[in-house]
Amino acid sequence: MDIKHCAIGIDLGGSKIAFGIVDEEGRLLELLRYDTATQGGYSAVLNQVVKGVEQLKGASGISMSGIGIGVAGQVDPGTGAVLFAPNLDWHNVPLQAEVQTACAMPVVITNDVRAALWGEWLFGAGRDGGDQVCIFIGTGIGGGIVCGGRVLEGCSNTAGEIGHMTVDLRGPLCHCGNRGCMEALAGGWAIARRAHESVKADPVFGSTILKMAGGKVEDITARTLVQAFYAGDALAAEIIEEVTDALAAGVAALVNVFNPCRIILGGGIIEGMPEMVSRIDKGVRRRALSAATGRLVICASKLGNEAGIIGAAALAMKTSYNRLI
Amino acid sequence: MDIKHCAIGIDLGGSKIAFGIVDEEGRLLELLRYDTATQGGYSAVLNQVVKGVEQLKGASGISMSGIGIGVAGQVDPGTGAVLFAPNLDWHNVPLQAEVQTACAMPVVITNDVRAALWGEWLFGAGRDGGDQVCIFIGTGIGGGIVCGGRVLEGCSNTAGEIGHMTVDLRGPLCHCGNRGCMEALAGGWAIARRAHESVKADPVFGSTILKMAGGKVEDITARTLVQAFYAGDALAAEIIEEVTDALAAGVAALVNVFNPCRIILGGGIIEGMPEMVSRIDKGVRRRALSAATGRLVICASKLGNEAGIIGAAALAMKTSYNRLI
Repeated sequence: MDIKHCAIGIDLGGSKIAFGIVDEEGRLLELLRYDTATQGGYSAVLNQVVKGVEQLKGASGISMSGIGIGVAGQVDPGTGAVLFAPNLDWHNVPLQAEVQTACAMPVVITNDVRAALWGEWLFGAGRDGGDQVCIFIGTGIGGGIVCGGRVLEGCSNTAGEIGHMTVDLRGPLCHCGNRGCMEALAGGWAIARRAHESVKADPVFGSTILKMAGGKVEDITARTLVQAFYAGDALAAEIIEEVTDALAAGVAALVNVFNPCRIILGGGIIEGMPEMVSRIDKGVRRRALSAATGRLVICASKLGNEAGIIGAAALAMKTSYNRLI
Repeated sequence: MDIKHCAIGIDLGGSKIAFGIVDEEGRLLELLRYDTATQGGYSAVLNQVVKGVEQLKGASGISMSGIGIGVAGQVDPGTGAVLFAPNLDWHNVPLQAEVQTACAMPVVITNDVRAALWGEWLFGAGRDGGDQVCIFIGTGIGGGIVCGGRVLEGCSNTAGEIGHMTVDLRGPLCHCGNRGCMEALAGGWAIARRAHESVKADPVFGSTILKMAGGKVEDITARTLVQAFYAGDALAAEIIEEVTDALAAGVAALVNVFNPCRIILGGGIIEGMPEMVSRIDKGVRRRALSAATGRLVICASKLGNEAGIIGAAALAMKTSYNRLI
């Protein structure tokens, strides 16, 4: 058997927990998914994590160098405690210490978006890509930055809040309290909000979108809008155009400031509408400085849903390797 | 004599060349300024550089470890050639090689803004400041980023074009061709443009500003506007408010993306209106994520005009030191 190192990667969100065994080439050897027992509180979810790890260890018979967990929340990088995870309703829980004790294995905790960044960087679209920025466009917009072979963490470990770059300083209100964040114009929730407003304001122009949502304005989602776009609806095309421009403006700002070699675009919106990548690419090249775009590649993420599992496991292997040397 | 290392730092711009002898504590021991012989073309300016170096060497009697030059243009970091310097009208000139031969000393070339960043980081407001972003707000807006003890250079050495972050995606046209760049709203030239438009549109409301510029709209500069602001003029106050908001939006975006420990603000606009720092600070804390601002310090640059000389010399000392070990 020529597998030298493996680790368990866990992507821990408010609705799903996904577990995987990942080898040192970033291959996902086993996969396991549960609905998160959010209702049961922290201890119920902790039990799920421990059970999942046991199940994977039992099934594989492979010796594992550690566990990496990407959690949808703010993590203390020193202690591996989860300071705040709104979708899990956790405040300051000692996740690293408790999983480590229960599973008797080294554990490393990071934020779920940063885990996905690690995955794409080491084993996905960013492999050998030099300085790069990953942007995940789903309900919200998050991401991360790799510079000089390091993931940027920042002064209090919050670097990478790409969705909260202001691109329209008097624009619509964001969940964060600021106006005109990229997320407030192009995140899934903002696309839905924009569609609701347009359909309410002009029900005739919005009739196709409304019909696709079963006749209820509140049921229009970003997914409905993408469907309507592919069905040739004019309002959907208009909104998608605005969304693309907001994304291009934000990405162009990142390109001018960081001058990355690669921009990697992922998340549900990109997966639902892959041509968005080339549309954003065109917009960025129109807006950004040509000196900064000459060597720039803009591409789609490669690992999809599995980026977080693979990245968390990679981080566990890296941490265990760093401990050894 | 306890001076161990010294270097010559040169800040080479389209209108002035400033030379200094700088010691390893970042102290400026000698200073020399010429008007740049831009009209004479590259060879005339090259002569000025060589003469200035000889004069400083002769005057001081200190042995120098090298020469650092910060030039207002785009530099090839491999060869030290200046690829393009619009204000000097230079295209692809081998500055590093020629100064090195003429002065018989090691020479390192960088961009002028990046030299100023090195100066502020090592010996100015950024000393011991950890991850930091420097923003110089003058006629244009430039800057640079220090992360993990390194100056970010980017994929083609253009990282730090902070002035060209989009903060108002349908905003006024920028010199770079994009719309709504921070520079197009808050750089000196943009402040003047905004004032010209307002005074033309409403000469009564603009009468104080117009009078201060000697009655000619075209003679209104950012400096005029700051004077009018301090004289209590309402239009100037309105424009300064808009400028501050654009700067706060851009800085907040940087804070969310990088999570720096420190933001350092310098350049002519900040020097002409020091209270701008606390105004921007307030705006940033209103716009940025609280998780990213908890440990953030926003402060004024310390080295002013001399940051570029000191930083270029520091880079020369660092390069010479790296060569030795």
